[in-house]
Amino acid sequence: MSATVTVLGLGPMGTTLAHAFLDRGHRTTVWNRTPGRAEALTAKGATEACTAAEAVAASPLTVLCLAGHDAVRAVLDRAAEAAGGRTLVNLTSGSPMDARETAAWADRHGSAYLDGVLMTTTSGLGRPEALQLYAGSHATFDTVRHPLSALGTPLHLGTEPALPSVYDTALLSMLWGALTGWLHGAALIGADGPGGNVAATAFTDVAGQWLPTVHAFLRTYAGQVDSGSYPGGDFTLRLHQRTLGILQHADALRGVTSGLPELVGRLTDRAIAEGHGEDSFARLIEFLRESGAA
Amino acid sequence: MSATVTVLGLGPMGTTLAHAFLDRGHRTTVWNRTPGRAEALTAKGATEACTAAEAVAASPLTVLCLAGHDAVRAVLDRAAEAAGGRTLVNLTSGSPMDARETAAWADRHGSAYLDGVLMTTTSGLGRPEALQLYAGSHATFDTVRHPLSALGTPLHLGTEPALPSVYDTALLSMLWGALTGWLHGAALIGADGPGGNVAATAFTDVAGQWLPTVHAFLRTYAGQVDSGSYPGGDFTLRLHQRTLGILQHADALRGVTSGLPELVGRLTDRAIAEGHGEDSFARLIEFLRESGAA
Repeated sequence: MSATVTVLGLGPMGTTLAHAFLDRGHRTTVWNRTPGRAEALTAKGATEACTAAEAVAASPLTVLCLAGHDAVRAVLDRAAEAAGGRTLVNLTSGSPMDARETAAWADRHGSAYLDGVLMTTTSGLGRPEALQLYAGSHATFDTVRHPLSALGTPLHLGTEPALPSVYDTALLSMLWGALTGWLHGAALIGADGPGGNVAATAFTDVAGQWLPTVHAFLRTYAGQVDSGSYPGGDFTLRLHQRTLGILQHADALRGVTSGLPELVGRLTDRAIAEGHGEDSFARLIEFLRESGAA
Repeated sequence: MSATVTVLGLGPMGTTLAHAFLDRGHRTTVWNRTPGRAEALTAKGATEACTAAEAVAASPLTVLCLAGHDAVRAVLDRAAEAAGGRTLVNLTSGSPMDARETAAWADRHGSAYLDGVLMTTTSGLGRPEALQLYAGSHATFDTVRHPLSALGTPLHLGTEPALPSVYDTALLSMLWGALTGWLHGAALIGADGPGGNVAATAFTDVAGQWLPTVHAFLRTYAGQVDSGSYPGGDFTLRLHQRTLGILQHADALRGVTSGLPELVGRLTDRAIAEGHGEDSFARLIEFLRESGAA
């Protein structure tokens, strides 16, 4: 089923978006503040609009992928009349407050509005695993879910427009942790140790097969965080402490330092000192919050 | 196809192993240093041996899951004669050196030997996603792969017996990073912020759907680590630096502290200061190694 879509902003991500829409056979209109970026797109069948207002008027759905929040405000103010009665999906990076402000603008101008974040790079865009996070009304999401699925898998988080930005930051926190821990592991296993010099690709092949188990830990611990009860089972903080010691011993032998085992060790030691040695790792959340332990 | 298996050691994991073998219909003999732990297993059809030697003699395959390396040596020395011509799979936690020592013992006594690590807790054992890492000869692995699949998915890492222990430590490093980053994200998104108070389970549902993208980053970066070339694409260290600033700003507003964004920030700042701002995150591995940057 072919849809009709407008893309405002032809930076690297906006251009990739527009290609993804075209590749799925959607009628696509594009616009960029400075012209000259649409050549490959028009060659593929896109229509280049001369003004943002004309671009917005060309489609029931407009996707904004601009340089920042100020650009969004400036562009929307010039296309305000056309935006009324149409749907705006804003994929421009911005803060939770930016999202709320743009949602309020859309409300004042009679536009349906979704705020969104693409949780991928341009090279991942369009693959089924490319996650897109949206917030706004369910009805609006249902209307545009089909064209947006050209970009990956769209998820609806709720109605509060700040949600995608908030999730984005929290998910990046997980990414940085995973990347740092993985990189530390790759440095360790790639140092000339008792297992020889294991290639990062070989390690990562096994690490990838272990991710479902990592996910199972996250699910178990998420339930514990929500209930405020942290039974340790057979992977208690005391066992974490012991195995962290093994990692630090290997680090010292192989000359690897990231600071990560020490960071986790400090949190674990503190929780154990306060009497939580038989609890799970999830107990540590209480030491990340302002007040420290509960 | 029913196999015949012996389990030495009936601690929590050994007992769970023995149940998993019985549940798949394997003829199972069990032994524990102190008797009285096998009741539930014998009720299910297991045979309890009176001595370790008798237990080893009862099956072509013996799985050891004991309290530690000293226990492995003590038990094997008492069962040395029976072990000749049979296969030993050692799942007892131990160091790379312990693994080599036990492999050498098996070699001297004419036993086929695999060193192994179960990358799961007792509650995950037996599920298909439960990863088991083994090292030893391919032929031995092929012989016992079928009965071992009762415990999860067995992977063969290579012939060097230290490999499972080495992988274990490196994978735990990844786990600690992922858990810490995820917990930080859960603390942030659960603090009363612009998205409201998002439950850890809701956050983790989305995080789980994002793991394939995290895995895609790891695969890309693993290739970069092995080649020593780190093109940043559209997710450069400079962009990491900027988005880390957003996370730290949110942390300050919501009162969340783990030390993780600061740790990643220090590594990133240093790499940028040394001229690697357009490289990918994988470049940071050079700052984890003894010599610091390349």
